[in-house]
Amino acid sequence: MTQSHLSHLACPACGTTADADVPQNLCGCGSPFLARYDLERLAGATTFDAMTARPPSLWRYRELLPVRDDAHVVTMGEGMTPLLPLPRLGGALGVPRLLMKDEGLIPTGSFKARGAAVGVSRAHELGIERVAMPTNGNAGAAWSAYAARAGMRALVVMPVDAPDICRRECTAAGAELYLVDGLIGDAGAIVAGEVGGGGWFDVSTLKEPYRLEGKKTMGLEIYEQLGRRVPDVIVYPTGGGVGLIGIHKALGELRELGWLDGPLPRLVAAQATGCAPIVRAFEGGARTAEPFPDAHTVAFGINVANPLGATLILDAIAATGGCAVAVEDDELLAVLAETARLEGAFVCPEGAAGVAAIRRLRESGWIDESDEVVLLNTGAGIKYPDTVAADAPVLQPGDALPLR
Amino acid sequence: MTQSHLSHLACPACGTTADADVPQNLCGCGSPFLARYDLERLAGATTFDAMTARPPSLWRYRELLPVRDDAHVVTMGEGMTPLLPLPRLGGALGVPRLLMKDEGLIPTGSFKARGAAVGVSRAHELGIERVAMPTNGNAGAAWSAYAARAGMRALVVMPVDAPDICRRECTAAGAELYLVDGLIGDAGAIVAGEVGGGGWFDVSTLKEPYRLEGKKTMGLEIYEQLGRRVPDVIVYPTGGGVGLIGIHKALGELRELGWLDGPLPRLVAAQATGCAPIVRAFEGGARTAEPFPDAHTVAFGINVANPLGATLILDAIAATGGCAVAVEDDELLAVLAETARLEGAFVCPEGAAGVAAIRRLRESGWIDESDEVVLLNTGAGIKYPDTVAADAPVLQPGDALPLR
Repeated sequence: MTQSHLSHLACPACGTTADADVPQNLCGCGSPFLARYDLERLAGATTFDAMTARPPSLWRYRELLPVRDDAHVVTMGEGMTPLLPLPRLGGALGVPRLLMKDEGLIPTGSFKARGAAVGVSRAHELGIERVAMPTNGNAGAAWSAYAARAGMRALVVMPVDAPDICRRECTAAGAELYLVDGLIGDAGAIVAGEVGGGGWFDVSTLKEPYRLEGKKTMGLEIYEQLGRRVPDVIVYPTGGGVGLIGIHKALGELRELGWLDGPLPRLVAAQATGCAPIVRAFEGGARTAEPFPDAHTVAFGINVANPLGATLILDAIAATGGCAVAVEDDELLAVLAETARLEGAFVCPEGAAGVAAIRRLRESGWIDESDEVVLLNTGAGIKYPDTVAADAPVLQPGDALPLR
Repeated sequence: MTQSHLSHLACPACGTTADADVPQNLCGCGSPFLARYDLERLAGATTFDAMTARPPSLWRYRELLPVRDDAHVVTMGEGMTPLLPLPRLGGALGVPRLLMKDEGLIPTGSFKARGAAVGVSRAHELGIERVAMPTNGNAGAAWSAYAARAGMRALVVMPVDAPDICRRECTAAGAELYLVDGLIGDAGAIVAGEVGGGGWFDVSTLKEPYRLEGKKTMGLEIYEQLGRRVPDVIVYPTGGGVGLIGIHKALGELRELGWLDGPLPRLVAAQATGCAPIVRAFEGGARTAEPFPDAHTVAFGINVANPLGATLILDAIAATGGCAVAVEDDELLAVLAETARLEGAFVCPEGAAGVAAIRRLRESGWIDESDEVVLLNTGAGIKYPDTVAADAPVLQPGDALPLR
C-alpha cells in the first residue's frame, strides 16, 4: 500500500502540535490546524514521476494526502481537471499567456469536491459517522454526495439565496438540509449550536484540517500540468479562501521536498465589491479581516463576510507578493458572457470574478503582458443558469428559418 | 507530430468508399459513412502503452482519431472520465460488479462533448466555418461551445421542451438558436431546409462521420481503464445511438489491431417506454426501426423517435449478443434518487434509464450476478434540477435545529 507521510497537526498561529490520528477541530488559540508531513522521509521514499504515472485523479498524490489506508478512500474520480489555454480571451484582456484550470469538470460540478473527497475519506478513517456544516451551496452539495458514498450522515445549513441546484443535490444525496433566511455566518452559528450538543462532527471551512489537504491538490496539479514549474500569477476567487491557502501550502511542500525552485507565483484573491473583506484588509495593510457589512454579490460562493482563514489568506498573499482585488457584479457578468463567446467556456460567476480581476490588474499594470496567469474557474457555469439569457425565437414544425 | 491513420470513408450499407479529406455527409444510398483507418500500419507504428502515457484526454488516442494536424485540435480537456465501482447500488440491484462511466465530468456536462470536440476539430481542419444541427439539447450545447472555441459559427434548432440550461449554453456561446414547438425530427427538417440552401454544413447525428469518432473514445477508455480488457455487458441509454455504435466500432478496431481478444461485451440499448423504436425493432427481429408514434419521456436526451442509425445500432446489438430494453419514466426517476442516496452520484435521467434497465435485466436473469456491467451515465444530473426535490425547512438566524 502506498503510504501517507502525514506526521502530525500543527497550529500556524501559536505552534501547538496535535495528534493527527484522532478527530481535531480548531487549536485552543482559535486558529485552524494544518496537516504536516514527514517530507524528508517522503523525498527519500518516492518521486514526483512515480506519482504522475498513476491514474488521473487527485489520489495520485497519495503520499502528500492524509488518508492512511486505501480502504478508506472515498472517491468519485475527482481531480486532474484540465488546464486550458484561453488564447482569444487572453488576447482581449492583453494577457496572451492566460490559462484556466477548469474545476467544473469534477463530481458535483465544483472544486468543493476536492475538499469533500479528502475530508470525508479522512473523517471516515477516523471513525466519524456524522458530519455537519454551513455552506453557500457547493460545499454542502459535495460533502452530502461524498458522505452518501461513504455511508455517513450529513447535516447541512445553507442560506435561502444559495443556488437552487445545491439544495437539490443535498436532499438527493440524503443529507439533512435546512435553509436559513440569512448569510453563511448565520448558518454557521446554527451548526455550532448543534455540534456543541455532540453527535455531529463540525466540518465547517477550516474547522477540521483535511478539507484543505484536498484543495491543495489544485496547486500540485498546476505544477504537474505546466511540466514541473509554476506560473507567474495565480488568480483565485476568494470566499473562505481554502483553495488559495491550499495552493500556497502545496507549493511550499514541493519546495521543501526539493522539487520546486525559484519564486512562487503571486497569489491573487479575487472578490466582489459587495463582499470584499480580504481586499479591505489587504489595502489597509492588516493581517486580519473585519466582518464585511451587508455582504451581497451574484457570485454567491464568495459571499463570505468573515472568513475564518483571513490571516492565512493575507499571509499567503504577502509571502508571494500577491494582491487582493474586488470587481463589480456587472463587470463579472459581462466577462462571463465574453468568456463563453470567445472560448466556449461557460464559467461560474466566481470564476468570472477572477477573469474580471485579471482585466483590472492588467489595466493597472500589476499584471504584465508577459506574465503567465492561471485562473481558477471554481465551478461549472451550468450550475448557475440565471447568469446567461435563454431567449430564442420559437418556430412551428415546417417553418423555414428566419436567420438573423 | 503524432499521426492520424485515417485512410478513407466507407459506407457500411453499400460498400461505397469516399475521400475523407473533403467534407462529406451521407452516402448516396442514404446510410452514414464510417471513418476507416490503416490499422495494419498503425499496429506497426505505435502501441497502446504509448497512447496511455499521454495526458488524460481523449486526444491520447490520436492515431485512431481523424484529425491530421495537431494545430486543428479544438479541445477543452474532454475525455478520461472516471470509471467508478458502484458497490452499494450494485448490491441493491444484485449486480455486485457494477461500474459507472461518469460522462458528467466533461465540458458542457454531457458526453456530447466528445462528439463535438472531434467533429468540430475535423470540420475546422476541412475548412468548414459554419455548422448547423437539430438537437435535444446537449449536443447543441456542446457543438455551440466547441464552435465558439474554434471561431466557427453554429446554428442550432431544438425542441421547446429540451432542458432549459441547454438553451442558455447555446446562446452564451454565441450560437444562432431557434426553438421548435415539436420534436427533434421537426428540428431536423428545419435544419435540412436551411443547409439545402447552402452555406451551413449539416452536422446532424451521423450525417457527418466524425462525431462518431469522438464518441467511440468511450469504448477505448473503458478498455484502458479496465486494464486492457472489456466487461461482460455495457448498458447505453439510446436515443440517436451514436455512443453505442461508436463503442462497438472502437472495440472492433482494437480487435483488428490485435490488442483485444475474446468475446465483445453484450451491448444493451436502454430506452424509455415512451420512445422505444429500437426496443420495438429488436423485439420484432427487424434490422430497421419504424418511427415511434407520440414519442415522450422525461429522459429527454433519448427522445428520438426515428434514429438515422437504427440499423447500425441493431447490428451492434446482434453482433454482440446484446439486447434492447425499455423502462418507465417513474422507474427511472425512482432509481435516479436511489443512485444519489446510495452512491452520492447524481446521474442524468438518461443514465437513470440505464440503471433501471440493469435492474430489469437482472430480474429477468439476462444479466447474471457474476457479470461485470458498465453503465454509461451520459451526463451530469446538475443539468436536470427538476428530477429531484428541493424541499427544506427555512430557519431564521439564531434558531436552533429541529432535527428530523
